Amino acid sequence: MTGFDAAAAIRAKRLHDRAAELDAADGLAALRDRFLLPEGVVYLDGNSLGALPAAVPDAVEDAVRRQWGTDLIRSWNDNDWWDAPTRIGDTVGRLVGAAKGQVVCGDSTSVQLYNALTGAARLRPGRTLLLTDPDHFPTDQYIADAVARTLGLTVRRVPVRELPGVLAADGPDVAVAAYGPVDYRTGELYDMAALTDAVHAAGAVVLWDLCHAAGAVPVELDAIGADFAVGCGYKYLSGGPGAPAFVYVAARHQDAFDHAITGWHGHAEPFGMHGTYTPAPGISRARIGTPPLLSMLALEAALTAFDGVDMKALRAKSTSLTGFFLDCADTLLDGLGFTVATPRDPERRGSQVSLRHEHAYPMVQALIARGYIGDMRAPDILRFGFNALYVTHADVAGLAAELLRITEEREYADGRFAARSTVT
Amino acid sequence: MTGFDAAAAIRAKRLHDRAAELDAADGLAALRDRFLLPEGVVYLDGNSLGALPAAVPDAVEDAVRRQWGTDLIRSWNDNDWWDAPTRIGDTVGRLVGAAKGQVVCGDSTSVQLYNALTGAARLRPGRTLLLTDPDHFPTDQYIADAVARTLGLTVRRVPVRELPGVLAADGPDVAVAAYGPVDYRTGELYDMAALTDAVHAAGAVVLWDLCHAAGAVPVELDAIGADFAVGCGYKYLSGGPGAPAFVYVAARHQDAFDHAITGWHGHAEPFGMHGTYTPAPGISRARIGTPPLLSMLALEAALTAFDGVDMKALRAKSTSLTGFFLDCADTLLDGLGFTVATPRDPERRGSQVSLRHEHAYPMVQALIARGYIGDMRAPDILRFGFNALYVTHADVAGLAAELLRITEEREYADGRFAARSTVT
Repeated sequence: MTGFDAAAAIRAKRLHDRAAELDAADGLAALRDRFLLPEGVVYLDGNSLGALPAAVPDAVEDAVRRQWGTDLIRSWNDNDWWDAPTRIGDTVGRLVGAAKGQVVCGDSTSVQLYNALTGAARLRPGRTLLLTDPDHFPTDQYIADAVARTLGLTVRRVPVRELPGVLAADGPDVAVAAYGPVDYRTGELYDMAALTDAVHAAGAVVLWDLCHAAGAVPVELDAIGADFAVGCGYKYLSGGPGAPAFVYVAARHQDAFDHAITGWHGHAEPFGMHGTYTPAPGISRARIGTPPLLSMLALEAALTAFDGVDMKALRAKSTSLTGFFLDCADTLLDGLGFTVATPRDPERRGSQVSLRHEHAYPMVQALIARGYIGDMRAPDILRFGFNALYVTHADVAGLAAELLRITEEREYADGRFAARSTVT
Repeated sequence: MTGFDAAAAIRAKRLHDRAAELDAADGLAALRDRFLLPEGVVYLDGNSLGALPAAVPDAVEDAVRRQWGTDLIRSWNDNDWWDAPTRIGDTVGRLVGAAKGQVVCGDSTSVQLYNALTGAARLRPGRTLLLTDPDHFPTDQYIADAVARTLGLTVRRVPVRELPGVLAADGPDVAVAAYGPVDYRTGELYDMAALTDAVHAAGAVVLWDLCHAAGAVPVELDAIGADFAVGCGYKYLSGGPGAPAFVYVAARHQDAFDHAITGWHGHAEPFGMHGTYTPAPGISRARIGTPPLLSMLALEAALTAFDGVDMKALRAKSTSLTGFFLDCADTLLDGLGFTVATPRDPERRGSQVSLRHEHAYPMVQALIARGYIGDMRAPDILRFGFNALYVTHADVAGLAAELLRITEEREYADGRFAARSTVT
């Protein structure tokens, strides 16, 4: 703790000790061994790319050498490649409260959004509005605009707080509301059940983007009566870089799901080689083309990190981590130009805490140089994801201490942290 | 050769000897060592799933353990993940006659078709027809119908032979012609240059599906003035199961390329987190969402199997293999109920030979049981792909001999070969 003044050093030591107590009492601590975390790194960017689960390397090697190399084309049957999208979909479904037969894995989130949003809007012919969040992740907004264009709809950007009012006023015109339960910048968690009810009261359907929710916060798609959802595989699900996304189509909508990208894997008889499209029954119609099997099987292996995990206990640890970081920030970083962007009410918080600071970019670079990996989002957000499967309270206390050091010593002003790189 | 009559045995022996001569004179024979082919298997289904290139396992392990596991999120910069779609695209481009900056890798063929076909049709506003081949691979037809529906176009299915006539008659109404240069069932190869010219003479644009052409037959997209192309990574490119597809957008169309799925990776400033879409300049606008990196990097490693390969020499070997198989079939299989579905003119032949037989399905199963892996396509096609990088003339002679045995001994009538499995 050299460089801190004496009072700060005492406060940091107290937080360090408190972290040790919390970690000692953590019933999920052993889950960390399900990940291969590099030495010297505290990884707080699992909300952008999850860490490597220990089960993945062997599974991928088997997929490459035995399934592809030796079994070759026979793997479509013998190693169940054909069923991978629905099989892995069911596994993801368990993490988001979806009974079997409602989730398919494959493609990117952007593609799944395009496909599902088209199918969702077609359920409400004659309605002209597609509502989405002006603070939604960019691709969600771009895809909403793209789908609205082809279907002749109008996109209206309505902040979450104003959504119930707009639905009450203009509900009969609304076809779809496309929202995320967690703000990707601030980590604010919205009430999915209440918003779903409000959308339904207007006679519209809801499409949830679960990218920052799946595996991170409790999601009960079936219980709240959600219509559609999409999400990515590479954040809290730790499925690997660009891991395939997933789509949920509630069973009651599947027969009428009239989606955009009618690829042959979604055909009722894909090997009949028919010239016109007849959608498969059930969730299989949400399949599109041939999925990237190596990435799919990596995701499947990664999901075993959740085997036997009590999602309520995981959520409790997550709120403990995020709450503790807020305590740390209050204790160590007060008066240093930070503001907390994330709600203090744990019920309104995802598994992430974001701070704002005018020097966010070089600060995050300086943190990374010190082995604490978070990320930033323009213009001024330092974003830290706390994957409760592998992050400890000691990591959190260390993060706060490093932020104090970087700020007090103005380390972020070092020229080597100023340059912008392609991806932050 | 037990079981053959004496005359057939002599003919088979002559073909076997001729194969040995041809292989001894094969200047590309050493390329076979760039693949890890299983013992006891002759692999003639590389037109469905290419064999495993020797460079892939280590590359994938590095991608998993070092790039993902150790470097984590930093790999987007430090290991050039961000540039993978255009970098690998350029590598594919070299195999299909595309100068740099015109090809992007990622997503499935179905998704790329949807996206590119939309962009292609929007280049010709006011024109109402989308022409495609009634014998095109199913997903091409389904996607043509899907795109036409959203854009208010009409799909007309016109066989390749009738295409010039239809273009001459109804050209001013045609927006796009979407065809493949190789018939996926028969292996017939069409004249891409002449058809491209005919499409252009009508003022329309052409979209080529190169799934059965890339890496298999000479393709010169720039030289023939093609407008758009898509293709898959997992057939003759041997990129692995479900390897990402690619899309070619000719440089002259890129500024006006107004595609369907406006994902954030195609944005001019993807990390600016803007709420509206501004397409990136150049080919990057054809990027969609986050690509499946493990599958992408497997494809990239696989493409090194083409390093330094003279594509003209590869084509010469391919026509030698397919021609030799036709000789073998004529010599050994005459009068046994087979008909040749593939043109005998090597100029009109892809890297595949298809035979028709009423018992095609169980015959292919019996062949597989004997270690000769081909596939079948409904209703009656036995399909054999000859990837000249790793198939030998001895493989071809052996295939014909096995077919003779299976037919003469009516082995295909064995009940164990009759049941249909999910994927053939």
